Amino acid sequence: MSRNTTLHADTDAPPITAELARFVATHPSRGWSDAVEHEAHRTFVNWLGCAIGGSRHEATDAALAAVQMLEPSAQAAVLGRRERVDMAGAALVNGIASHVFDFDDTHLRTIIHPAGPVASAALALAERRGSSGRVLVDSIVLGIDVACRMGNVIYPQHYDRGWHITGSTGMLGAAAACARLLGLDAHRTTMALGIAASQPVGLREQFGTMTKPLHPGAAARAGLVSALLASRGFTASPRALEAPRGFAQVVSTKFDWSEATDALGERFEIAFNTYKPFACGIVIHPTIDAAVQLRARGVRAEAIDRVELLVHPLVLELTGKKEPADGLQAKFSVYHGFAAGLIVGRAGEDEFADALVRRDDVVALRRRVQATASDAIDEASADVTVWLRDGRREHVFVEHAIGSLQRPMQDTDLAAKFAALVEPVLGAGGVEPLLESGWSLAQAADVDALVARAVPAL
Amino acid sequence: MSRNTTLHADTDAPPITAELARFVATHPSRGWSDAVEHEAHRTFVNWLGCAIGGSRHEATDAALAAVQMLEPSAQAAVLGRRERVDMAGAALVNGIASHVFDFDDTHLRTIIHPAGPVASAALALAERRGSSGRVLVDSIVLGIDVACRMGNVIYPQHYDRGWHITGSTGMLGAAAACARLLGLDAHRTTMALGIAASQPVGLREQFGTMTKPLHPGAAARAGLVSALLASRGFTASPRALEAPRGFAQVVSTKFDWSEATDALGERFEIAFNTYKPFACGIVIHPTIDAAVQLRARGVRAEAIDRVELLVHPLVLELTGKKEPADGLQAKFSVYHGFAAGLIVGRAGEDEFADALVRRDDVVALRRRVQATASDAIDEASADVTVWLRDGRREHVFVEHAIGSLQRPMQDTDLAAKFAALVEPVLGAGGVEPLLESGWSLAQAADVDALVARAVPAL
Repeated sequence: MSRNTTLHADTDAPPITAELARFVATHPSRGWSDAVEHEAHRTFVNWLGCAIGGSRHEATDAALAAVQMLEPSAQAAVLGRRERVDMAGAALVNGIASHVFDFDDTHLRTIIHPAGPVASAALALAERRGSSGRVLVDSIVLGIDVACRMGNVIYPQHYDRGWHITGSTGMLGAAAACARLLGLDAHRTTMALGIAASQPVGLREQFGTMTKPLHPGAAARAGLVSALLASRGFTASPRALEAPRGFAQVVSTKFDWSEATDALGERFEIAFNTYKPFACGIVIHPTIDAAVQLRARGVRAEAIDRVELLVHPLVLELTGKKEPADGLQAKFSVYHGFAAGLIVGRAGEDEFADALVRRDDVVALRRRVQATASDAIDEASADVTVWLRDGRREHVFVEHAIGSLQRPMQDTDLAAKFAALVEPVLGAGGVEPLLESGWSLAQAADVDALVARAVPAL
Repeated sequence: MSRNTTLHADTDAPPITAELARFVATHPSRGWSDAVEHEAHRTFVNWLGCAIGGSRHEATDAALAAVQMLEPSAQAAVLGRRERVDMAGAALVNGIASHVFDFDDTHLRTIIHPAGPVASAALALAERRGSSGRVLVDSIVLGIDVACRMGNVIYPQHYDRGWHITGSTGMLGAAAACARLLGLDAHRTTMALGIAASQPVGLREQFGTMTKPLHPGAAARAGLVSALLASRGFTASPRALEAPRGFAQVVSTKFDWSEATDALGERFEIAFNTYKPFACGIVIHPTIDAAVQLRARGVRAEAIDRVELLVHPLVLELTGKKEPADGLQAKFSVYHGFAAGLIVGRAGEDEFADALVRRDDVVALRRRVQATASDAIDEASADVTVWLRDGRREHVFVEHAIGSLQRPMQDTDLAAKFAALVEPVLGAGGVEPLLESGWSLAQAADVDALVARAVPAL
């Protein structure tokens, strides 16, 4: 009772909880550039594909089985599946599914994967409420803005401390999006953010387990329920984000308040979202990109004598596994990344299946790759030279891999990624109609048609 | 991707997640002294009274209304009410109700209020599963042991940092209790604790808002769902509590691992649980206790000329409000505490109602109290001298207030507190049968009769 110590305290923090809430509650619908509007659709399509692709993963199965123990009502769809659960359960399970392949979007400055918490909560609520696509897009843009801005406030010290920032800011983004969908006023939106502030989710120690994808799912759920509570008059501190014993000062030692509100309503963080072209850690991406480019030039595995790969030392430190035994190990093998890229021409989840990792031609090519670490080359780059059996030589230098801000995935790339994720779940005929619903989301009177296309036919 | 910094890291922490899980999974039923067994029943009865007493608070109303938006199935009772919701919703709402009066139990060493998260989750799951009272008591003893031991590991730095420790350790206690109720083996219990470790709930900034009682409720819910997930094969890090980027090292700068496992299975933290006799901050308790003692000696308000109150300076710093305008302010008035104790003979939630706070005789007595701060007197004590109009003098020195470990509430005190909380909700006839069910919990074949007595008759 007598303890008043705080390790560090900024008692003069500006009222960012209230300012962000007012922004979320009052910013005009579609109050941004065409580029931001387009990026919102790209974010949604990428998230939708990832969630459907991950819908049959054992983590998704286990989470859905647990939710079923609550005998939920059938308010909202589990994407890619026939089951329906209450909207909070749907936010949880879809959030898990969308992150389980580590294939979702990235706000590079904070390494937040923002769509998982935000879109998973927003779509479930929108389905239940019969919201228009327009309102849903608005809520996703604003929710992602809140999550990523709060990430900017506390990153990197927050992440360094051990928080999985996607889940530990995602509940704020989800609460903001759901408050907007519910039409809450500025005061109740402040309460929603405040309630969510008490529920950060995610420890980095969980990486490599099912609890990693739980983080965006549980954050989606917490944010959605926070908004529901606020809509019913539940209260929280109006300074929950910035007070000395509020969110930012409790979970980080850095809190740059200006990041919360600088150019608010002018600069949108969703504009800086990126999408993974390959289902593995980002340091392997330049090498896979180079392999795909070599394949496009006509280089075939059987014609290769040897491969010289020049990469930053960190690449080998993190992904230097020479002889991966299975798909999980292959995600940490730049050698496998090269082989998959050259032989298959892509590196989606299928290219990290155990069978492919063990296939003779893949193993043989992997063994012909020599990787050398060099401080002279950037983490984001790869320098690849291939000596062919006929004596010729091919060289590719990738400065920025496909999927980076400098070389973003084109819409056609996203469509191809979407198809690869969705087809195994919904069949070939299911891809195009759903993709069309995704690209035209803002025009939809409600989300029913999209949701109907996002689950298997009876 | 390249960042490997940690601010502080103990990479050699013992495997406390697995050790606590093995303990929870394998410790024999009723494997403790009669005193511990009795304290478990006292903890349960006190929690049950608080939850029913708080069942009509506006925070409980708002939370239940939000849960109803999910159209939950009717798996478990909302205590003190007719509504039934799914077990996770019941854990949430009952956890909120039990803490909303700030009248629940306290593990003094960590100021954790352990029953809120643990019993709220455990009773909801026990009702759904048809568990025996014996299994429920076992789960509460073990769950509270896990939460308070983890509190001992990280307190006080964790609390000083700004965490509301009841919710930020409570999800571990709830997960442990529910894992025990579900009969999970040591491995799956490890997973349940690991899943829960990613979901700490609670910022001290929320004190004074409805989100404060949300903390035990949301922790109960998170712990219950973590155990359900583990029961379905969901995985987490087996070192989620102790790893460098695991729970303890992320949320505190102190981690005394020995606290987790020293005398595990011999010393039970529930043995150190205490119960508030008065519905206000603990520093006022010695003064109220003195007033109640004076009343018992026959001292009446109208006979009092003046009162001299000698207390530790902190008491006036925290509760020095001389003229409280309403019930909320009265909780921060040692003057009101004395007046209520002397005039009514108790200081439950009713004695902090606006009407009583403003009653003429209460106001008049309050104004006759002179409080003096002195460093010579302990925080836990109060020295009270009353000068009567007839010239006589009465003096009481309270070294340790009723409700402290040194002067614990007797079972009869707890029964009186229970009656005062429950009667307004269930009626006079509802108190004794339910109290009997509480005291005999371990003998019950299932919890159905108790639950039926804990809700209003149709």
